[in-house]
Amino acid sequence: MSRFFSSRNAAVEPYTPGEQPRDMQYIKLNTNESPYPPSPKAAAMAAEAAARLQLYSDPQCRDLNAAAAAHFAVGTDELLFTNGSDEILDYAVRAFCGPERGMVCPDITYSFYPVLAAVHRIRYTEIPLTKDFRIRLEDYRGVKGMVLLANPNAPTGIALSRAALEDFIAEDPERLVLVDEAYVDFGGESCLPLIRQYDNLIVTQTFSKSRSMAGARLGVGFAAKELIADMNAIKYSSNPYNVNSMTMAAGIGALLDGEYTRSCIAKIVDTREVFVEKLREMGYDVLPSSTNFVFAKSPRLGGQELYRKLRERGILVRHFETPRLRDYNRITIGTPGQMDALLAALRILEKTEEGK
Amino acid sequence: MSRFFSSRNAAVEPYTPGEQPRDMQYIKLNTNESPYPPSPKAAAMAAEAAARLQLYSDPQCRDLNAAAAAHFAVGTDELLFTNGSDEILDYAVRAFCGPERGMVCPDITYSFYPVLAAVHRIRYTEIPLTKDFRIRLEDYRGVKGMVLLANPNAPTGIALSRAALEDFIAEDPERLVLVDEAYVDFGGESCLPLIRQYDNLIVTQTFSKSRSMAGARLGVGFAAKELIADMNAIKYSSNPYNVNSMTMAAGIGALLDGEYTRSCIAKIVDTREVFVEKLREMGYDVLPSSTNFVFAKSPRLGGQELYRKLRERGILVRHFETPRLRDYNRITIGTPGQMDALLAALRILEKTEEGK
Repeated sequence: MSRFFSSRNAAVEPYTPGEQPRDMQYIKLNTNESPYPPSPKAAAMAAEAAARLQLYSDPQCRDLNAAAAAHFAVGTDELLFTNGSDEILDYAVRAFCGPERGMVCPDITYSFYPVLAAVHRIRYTEIPLTKDFRIRLEDYRGVKGMVLLANPNAPTGIALSRAALEDFIAEDPERLVLVDEAYVDFGGESCLPLIRQYDNLIVTQTFSKSRSMAGARLGVGFAAKELIADMNAIKYSSNPYNVNSMTMAAGIGALLDGEYTRSCIAKIVDTREVFVEKLREMGYDVLPSSTNFVFAKSPRLGGQELYRKLRERGILVRHFETPRLRDYNRITIGTPGQMDALLAALRILEKTEEGK
Repeated sequence: MSRFFSSRNAAVEPYTPGEQPRDMQYIKLNTNESPYPPSPKAAAMAAEAAARLQLYSDPQCRDLNAAAAAHFAVGTDELLFTNGSDEILDYAVRAFCGPERGMVCPDITYSFYPVLAAVHRIRYTEIPLTKDFRIRLEDYRGVKGMVLLANPNAPTGIALSRAALEDFIAEDPERLVLVDEAYVDFGGESCLPLIRQYDNLIVTQTFSKSRSMAGARLGVGFAAKELIADMNAIKYSSNPYNVNSMTMAAGIGALLDGEYTRSCIAKIVDTREVFVEKLREMGYDVLPSSTNFVFAKSPRLGGQELYRKLRERGILVRHFETPRLRDYNRITIGTPGQMDALLAALRILEKTEEGK
């Protein structure tokens, strides 16, 4: 820390991204990326934009907004694109949290949320998941603050129904609810159709997962237009040109190529179902996943140990060394071939352990 | 404003980007973009990256950092890339300003600075430029806070020498100085060679102007490694994957193609010199520019009027309607052909005015 670091940042605890080692070629199942490339239309449109980079990207994202408004059936003033969905979360926290409103999240969820709270000096309240890793909305009843729920949740992969969330949102119009739907396309029910009815709801999504655009950084928020205007006030005060032209073009391409996105999702969901079944046959405890990853516990090996042994064999999964999570690993769904390689490695490791 | 907008944001006053009208094809000389496309190498490398977007961009920007460290002759821990240079300014303000340290800027400078101060609730002190629009460093002597100077300054285009800035930086090691060198490549002297000697100095640059990459959003900060580490703490608490893969690839391409960058700069500087001479022949007051724009005052027409009449003729320049700036317009240097078209329009407008 330098002698100039402001005292305001005393509580800052930076996020640790999933590792990206370069010492060898890994089967990378640790950061919930898609195993499939982006739509050829997305890549081609981005490549075209690359030849015209001398001009600023449109701070209003007009073309992308229009394409997205048509695709998601919302108004162009009911959405806001950002440089990845971490940024839309950042804008929401800055726009709506403060001395009058803290953040309320499950104790087990996307570990970036408490990081955001700390850097913006926002009170952060954790509500424990149930024993079987579920969000129980009744537990959020008394609490004050912006309730931020990943749905499906991470790293558990478990989803809440839209009906349950709607009841919760409707219950108290003065409570702001942000539903982070990064993984919704793999089996969740989106709350997007509710934004017109409830002006205390923000829905965020990303193009990183189901649209294979993690490297492009494109996130989006949906909400009543007053909430979008407030988040735009933060955007235009921080980084007015927050989305670059190539990413905007890729986003339009991806939206125009819905068929491609649907086929990638179908492949990943199919692969997941087969993989989960095989894991369970091996005695693994696997939480019910509505996402492009599974959260699983070996019958014999500790989570840390399994993570380490897979890494030695060139397979990366994500391990969280915290009390309730340490027995598990989060495994991204890759191609069928990658999952077979993982299963083969797991069989060897389990057998060795069994023979001890 | 929604009923959820936090009271923390009471002072927020969002930045207004230069207009990007779409009603007709304009000669666009209003946002200091390069009239030349990016290096073919930059565009090609970005296009290649577009086909692999399913993987997250490297949060550590390792390849780009290595290329930049070699190019700028600094260590990889002495620089930090961001999503445009507005973002590195944002990180610096958040890392180093707070109750103990406000921001101190010229009263006439990049109008984004006070916006940043407001959104982060930072005390903002303005020091007037001299009558001839110059920064007089003696005037900053007594003040406390992070001194943020655009060098060359905008919208004036006037530069301070490195020697003068070095004296100022050396004078008080407890005063943090941020030199925003967005336009330095067009005639300024960079303070970059000073970062090893002075750990109270931050230098920021952008790939938007001299490298024709405004649409890619790539900014960079240089400083002693402790300062870079502090800004990284903010980055990893806000948007760990802040730079997308295509932009990183384009950045590497641009750095590898230094010859192209130098030739674009030479063309723009030559065009500027010819343009300034012609403007002066017409009786314009033109401030001495070390940038890719000029700040000029018509002998007959008010700044607002000139802006409006040029706009009607399909030429966009930037006008600032504030007391000290309203007689002037900021005119980006385009191609020689674009500047000739502008000069022809100005001649007609001046003649009409003269005949009145």
